[in-house]
Amino acid sequence: MEEEGIVKRPSEGGESNGTGAADGISAVIPGWFSEMSPMWPGEAHSLKVEKILYQGKSEYQNVMVFESATYGKVLVLDGVIQVTERDECAYQEMITHLPLCSIQNPKKVLVIGGGDGGVLREVSRYSSIEQIDICEIDKMVVDVSKQFFPNLAVGFEDPRVNLHIGDGVAFLKVVPVGTYDAVIVDSSDPIGPAQELFEKPFFESVAKALRPGGVVCTQAESIWLHMHIIEDIVSNCRQVFKGSVKYAWTTVPTYPSGVIGFMLCSTDGPPVDFQNPVHLIDERDELNKTKGPLKFYNPEIHYASFCLPSFAKRVISSKTN
Amino acid sequence: MEEEGIVKRPSEGGESNGTGAADGISAVIPGWFSEMSPMWPGEAHSLKVEKILYQGKSEYQNVMVFESATYGKVLVLDGVIQVTERDECAYQEMITHLPLCSIQNPKKVLVIGGGDGGVLREVSRYSSIEQIDICEIDKMVVDVSKQFFPNLAVGFEDPRVNLHIGDGVAFLKVVPVGTYDAVIVDSSDPIGPAQELFEKPFFESVAKALRPGGVVCTQAESIWLHMHIIEDIVSNCRQVFKGSVKYAWTTVPTYPSGVIGFMLCSTDGPPVDFQNPVHLIDERDELNKTKGPLKFYNPEIHYASFCLPSFAKRVISSKTN
Repeated sequence: MEEEGIVKRPSEGGESNGTGAADGISAVIPGWFSEMSPMWPGEAHSLKVEKILYQGKSEYQNVMVFESATYGKVLVLDGVIQVTERDECAYQEMITHLPLCSIQNPKKVLVIGGGDGGVLREVSRYSSIEQIDICEIDKMVVDVSKQFFPNLAVGFEDPRVNLHIGDGVAFLKVVPVGTYDAVIVDSSDPIGPAQELFEKPFFESVAKALRPGGVVCTQAESIWLHMHIIEDIVSNCRQVFKGSVKYAWTTVPTYPSGVIGFMLCSTDGPPVDFQNPVHLIDERDELNKTKGPLKFYNPEIHYASFCLPSFAKRVISSKTN
Repeated sequence: MEEEGIVKRPSEGGESNGTGAADGISAVIPGWFSEMSPMWPGEAHSLKVEKILYQGKSEYQNVMVFESATYGKVLVLDGVIQVTERDECAYQEMITHLPLCSIQNPKKVLVIGGGDGGVLREVSRYSSIEQIDICEIDKMVVDVSKQFFPNLAVGFEDPRVNLHIGDGVAFLKVVPVGTYDAVIVDSSDPIGPAQELFEKPFFESVAKALRPGGVVCTQAESIWLHMHIIEDIVSNCRQVFKGSVKYAWTTVPTYPSGVIGFMLCSTDGPPVDFQNPVHLIDERDELNKTKGPLKFYNPEIHYASFCLPSFAKRVISSKTN
C-alpha cells in the first residue's frame, strides 16, 4: 500500500501529541489522515485517504493534497485541513458574502491569504467590483490549487484579480490610506505563518487601508474550542474599529468542532448593520450565471450566523455592538 | 496501559470498515476512541481516552462510558457517541426548547428514548408542566446515566417524571388519543433499536397521541451527511401532520459532521409558528434558578436554527410550510 509509509502510525505504546502535524501528515490510522493539533488537544478528525496527490515543503509550511474517500480532494497545510471539495462552499461563501453583502456597491476588495482562490471565486460574483487584490504569502498554495482544485483556482481567472505573493502585514503597510471598501482575511490558525494576522497592529493596518465605513471579515476560530482567542480578537477589534464590531459563525464539518467564526468590523463612517444585509446577490446576474448558484449562502443564513449560543453570547456580546 | 487491550487496533494492513462499532469500542488509535460507522463512511472523529469507566452489553446494544481527555465523560451506544459532558447542552436544550417554547403552557409531555435524562432535565424547567412521561427501551442506559452522568440523570429526580422501560412504538399504541401537548423523540440513528422511530407508522402514532395543535420534535440527522434520510422524514411527516412541518438544526461538535437536525411538526388545530417562539424561558423562575442558567438555548438561536443553507433549503423547503 503506497501510503503506508507516508501516512504514519504512532510508535508502539506511545501517543500522538500533535507534533506529527509539523510533518503535514499526522495520520495515525493506516490509510487515513488524522488531524491533530495542540489547538484542539484530545480530539482528532480523520478522513480516509484514497491517494496522496502532492506533498511539498515551502518556505513557510508543509503542503499536502490527497484524494479522500468521501470528501473529494483535500488541501492540508502543516497537518491542518484547509479545504475539502465537499464542504468548502460554507467557508468561502460565508467569509466573502457576510462582509460584501453588508455594503452597497463594493469597488475595491483586498484578500489577505486565501491562496487557494476560493474567496476570489466568491468576490468575483459582484459586478460592482473593479479591483480585487490578493496578497498570499505562500506561492506553493496558489500553484497547488491551480493544479488540483480547479473549482477554487477559477477565482484567479477573473481579469480584475491582481495576485501579490508576499507578506500581508508588509503589503498593508504600503497601501494608501482609505483604499479598500472591504478586506477579507482568509488565514490559517494563529500558530505558524498566520500568527500576526490575529494581533492588534495588523488590525490597525487593516483599519487604515479601509475607506470610512469600509468593512473587514477575518477568520476567527471556533466558539466551542477557542473562546479565549475570540475574546482577545474581539477586544482588539473593539479598540481599533470605531464602527460596528460583530461576531458570526457557521458550520464547516471538516474544521475542528465543526464550526468556524468570523470577526466583522467596520471603520468610522457610514454605519454598517452587519446582521441585515443591504445587498442581495442576484443569481440572474451574468457573473453568477456562469459560476452557478450559491451552494450555502443566502440572506437568512446571513442573519442567522450572528445569533450566538448563550455561552458565547455572554462573552462576546458585552464587547460588540 | 490498561486500555490497550480494550480500545482496539485494526489488524495489520487492514482497514476499519465500521463493523468494529458492533463492539461498542471501535477505536483504532491506541488510547483513543474512534467513531466509525457506515452512516458516515470515510471519516472518523476520535477522542483521547483517559479511562474506560463502564462497558456492558444490554439486550439492545453495547453501552460504554469513558472519561475523555478534553470532553468530560462520554456515553457511547453501539460505537456511536451519544453524549459528552462538554457539548451535551446544545442537543438537550435545542431538542427540548424548540418544541416547548413554540406552545403556550405545555402540561403533558412524552419523551421517547432520552434514557440519559438530559431531555428530562430541560423539560422540567417549565412550571406549567404537570406530567412528564418517558419511555426508554434500554434500562442499562438509565442505570449508567444515574451512575456516571449526574448532571443528566438529575432529570429523573423531578416528581412529575414517570419512567417506563419499554418499546416507544408499543407504548404509543396504547396512549389515549390526544393525551400530550408535546412529544420529544430523542433517538439514536436509524440503524439499530431506533430504526422504527424514523418510519411513517411511528409518526402516525405520535400524531394520534398529540392534542390538536400539539407538537413533536424528533432527532433528524445531519444536513451534511443524510439529506436522503431527511428528505424521507420530511415527506413522511408532511403526509402525517396537518399543521406545521419544519426542519431546524444546530451545532454539536461530537456528532458526525458537527451538526444535528430536528424535525418539528404540529397536528391539525391551533396553528404553531415554530420559528417564532411564543414562550420565553424565565430564568428567574424557581425551577430554573435551581438548575442554573441555560448554556446554549436562547430566543435568537431558536429563530436562527430554522435558517437553512441553500443546498438544504432547496430540498427541504419545497416539502415544509
